[in-house]
Amino acid sequence: MSPPIDAWRNAPIDAARLEAEIEELARFSETPYPSVTRILFTEQDMAARRWLMERMTAAGLAVRVDAVGNIFARWEGTDPDLPPVATGSHCDAIPDAGRFDGVVGVLGGLEAIRALQAAGHTPRRGIELIMFTAEEPTRYALGCLGSRVLAGVVDRERLDALRDAGGGTLDRARAAAGVFGDILGATLEPGHYAAFIELHIEQGPELEASGTPIGVVTAIAAPATLRVELSGAGGHAGAVLMPLRHDPLVAASEVVLAVDREARGSGAPDTVGTVGLLTVDPGAVNSIPRRVRMDIDIRDTDLARRDAVLERVRAAARDAAARHGVGHEEAILNADDPMTSDPAVLDAVESACEEEGLARVRMISRAYHDCVFMARICPAAMVFIPSKDGVSHRPDEYTSPREIAQGTAILAGALRRLSA
Amino acid sequence: MSPPIDAWRNAPIDAARLEAEIEELARFSETPYPSVTRILFTEQDMAARRWLMERMTAAGLAVRVDAVGNIFARWEGTDPDLPPVATGSHCDAIPDAGRFDGVVGVLGGLEAIRALQAAGHTPRRGIELIMFTAEEPTRYALGCLGSRVLAGVVDRERLDALRDAGGGTLDRARAAAGVFGDILGATLEPGHYAAFIELHIEQGPELEASGTPIGVVTAIAAPATLRVELSGAGGHAGAVLMPLRHDPLVAASEVVLAVDREARGSGAPDTVGTVGLLTVDPGAVNSIPRRVRMDIDIRDTDLARRDAVLERVRAAARDAAARHGVGHEEAILNADDPMTSDPAVLDAVESACEEEGLARVRMISRAYHDCVFMARICPAAMVFIPSKDGVSHRPDEYTSPREIAQGTAILAGALRRLSA
Repeated sequence: MSPPIDAWRNAPIDAARLEAEIEELARFSETPYPSVTRILFTEQDMAARRWLMERMTAAGLAVRVDAVGNIFARWEGTDPDLPPVATGSHCDAIPDAGRFDGVVGVLGGLEAIRALQAAGHTPRRGIELIMFTAEEPTRYALGCLGSRVLAGVVDRERLDALRDAGGGTLDRARAAAGVFGDILGATLEPGHYAAFIELHIEQGPELEASGTPIGVVTAIAAPATLRVELSGAGGHAGAVLMPLRHDPLVAASEVVLAVDREARGSGAPDTVGTVGLLTVDPGAVNSIPRRVRMDIDIRDTDLARRDAVLERVRAAARDAAARHGVGHEEAILNADDPMTSDPAVLDAVESACEEEGLARVRMISRAYHDCVFMARICPAAMVFIPSKDGVSHRPDEYTSPREIAQGTAILAGALRRLSA
Repeated sequence: MSPPIDAWRNAPIDAARLEAEIEELARFSETPYPSVTRILFTEQDMAARRWLMERMTAAGLAVRVDAVGNIFARWEGTDPDLPPVATGSHCDAIPDAGRFDGVVGVLGGLEAIRALQAAGHTPRRGIELIMFTAEEPTRYALGCLGSRVLAGVVDRERLDALRDAGGGTLDRARAAAGVFGDILGATLEPGHYAAFIELHIEQGPELEASGTPIGVVTAIAAPATLRVELSGAGGHAGAVLMPLRHDPLVAASEVVLAVDREARGSGAPDTVGTVGLLTVDPGAVNSIPRRVRMDIDIRDTDLARRDAVLERVRAAARDAAARHGVGHEEAILNADDPMTSDPAVLDAVESACEEEGLARVRMISRAYHDCVFMARICPAAMVFIPSKDGVSHRPDEYTSPREIAQGTAILAGALRRLSA
């Protein structure tokens, strides 16, 4: 049994206020509640950002926005020369998603700071809450845009080449959103922060299945994204006989099946492979496809195993293109290393669990988080809370107010310890 | 050798004027020249319709528009009580298509009428030029909308159920385009016309390959469209392990391969099967697909063989859905009978070829045309002219001004004979 929700040892988490804020933020969406669609620098995203900055300011935090749109809210410590401790996550949401992914780490971080203030905590190190720009790859097909920039793992050429579905550049979207300056100037030096902790929903079924309120994340799986474009001659669906066809959708279908087969056959259950994005041009029932673009996501906790699957998928795509006589282009959009949590930050999290009397389990994350990049510039770790039925990226994604408050209490306890 | 282009026996076709009008009409497009995208009741389609009606009026024709947007331009005969002779085609274009498909039958029909006027022909039967609404299925996934309505082969329930990609009804789009009235009131009685001839580009390579300027179409292949929707649980691409997945795109890929395999293996070269439209929801690189919709086009000159392939594809889709544990819905959007040309109309066309000294070949059409439906209410046939490299539904679709003038001269000769 967990202790009562209002008997926190570290700081008085206001679960009802936090729940109300999560519900309020969910209304900034292009799709109706409980569906959330909030895409980088759209009108709804900008409204959500303004709303969030008001909440941060109301908590007495000093707010700044960097050149890629990351939002920082700082509670100054008694020794401003020491590197601060940071926490945070993202507020963007893929099309038709839920209201907890990312959001609990931002609003939970804000509630943790307010609770520490209410408890009379006086931090020696400053505490910064970060809302990262575009953790989701929706607009520019590049995940963790904000934290990548902070960690300095994206170069100017890559940034200049980013295009959204309408062909627009990141610079144009930034300007429209009132975000200016040299993006690479936002990169932080290693050691800028003393530590980083990200609170997040699990997006998988393990915590719920074992009845454990807190997951302590020791590693994050290494994701890679491969874009394959196949192109053929097209033509009228009635007039071009089968032997004369070069249909890129037929070739692409073989690639989809290869991704599924190679991920299942990697030799380990941790390998996953997904084609989540596939578009057909011109996209008319009476036209043979001329061009198919697919983005293929492959992840594993083991880098060598992931790369072996990636190579087999690339070979399958080349082979399918050759057999069907269609054009083939490919690009690796990202291929990141796995992340390993820092022992001292893990210790702060586990000590907070002890203090609050909450059970925890060590686990790995197969989903991708801003913490992957923050870990490159400071000691870092993640805290997971349960996801009902393991569901995520869907409107019925759900974590209870009690579970969110429990995770927030652990975050507050860890921040208190790390900032002392 | 064909005779000189300006030595027509039946009527003085102005090849340069016709070419200029085809080029002018191509500018009404959502995509830049030579690409043409002109979708039912969009701004560009409405502008093209106004331009066309001005041309018809300038030729002294009486113009009317029916309740589904078909445009009729009539040259009255000396005996107005006799059923008139009709010709025509369509001006809409699928995304990123060319400038000749459909258009040569409309502007060629107008030029044929003007040439007959200039030649001093006095028709006994009236001659009507028809611009059919939405021959292409782009907006409502139903081809030959206008001619289907004229032939009375679509009912109110079907019309009420039509939805475009934005969920809009046909009635809403009609109202925005200023087209009103009871659509079913536009249906014509059998015998309303004495004959119908459609001039069209071949959209295949046969005429060019054999160096024959005129194709006399004796039959049109029977098309069927099957819509399949597959749905699964979705979820985060990183977090849901492979054995727990129900991915509708993996099942859909098997269906794409089944369409290709069954069409190739039907036992006859005339069978074609295409998946031209496939959409993935939510369509994010880090989300397992939740829903895939595919429109499958299957055609054959033999109805029984086409239906056998259709049944094998339906069985493959049911089987793929069951094996992958995904939801499965299907609907046959249309399944039309093949069309056979009328001997008397064929004779008028072939006599015109004799008079003009132009070689012709009898052929079948594997592409779908408004003539399929006009043949249900009157004697009908089609005239084909060459398509360079057999290319169609692409910006590089091409038929030369000379070839278009030759087809127009044959159309004029046949209209003269049938209206006398």
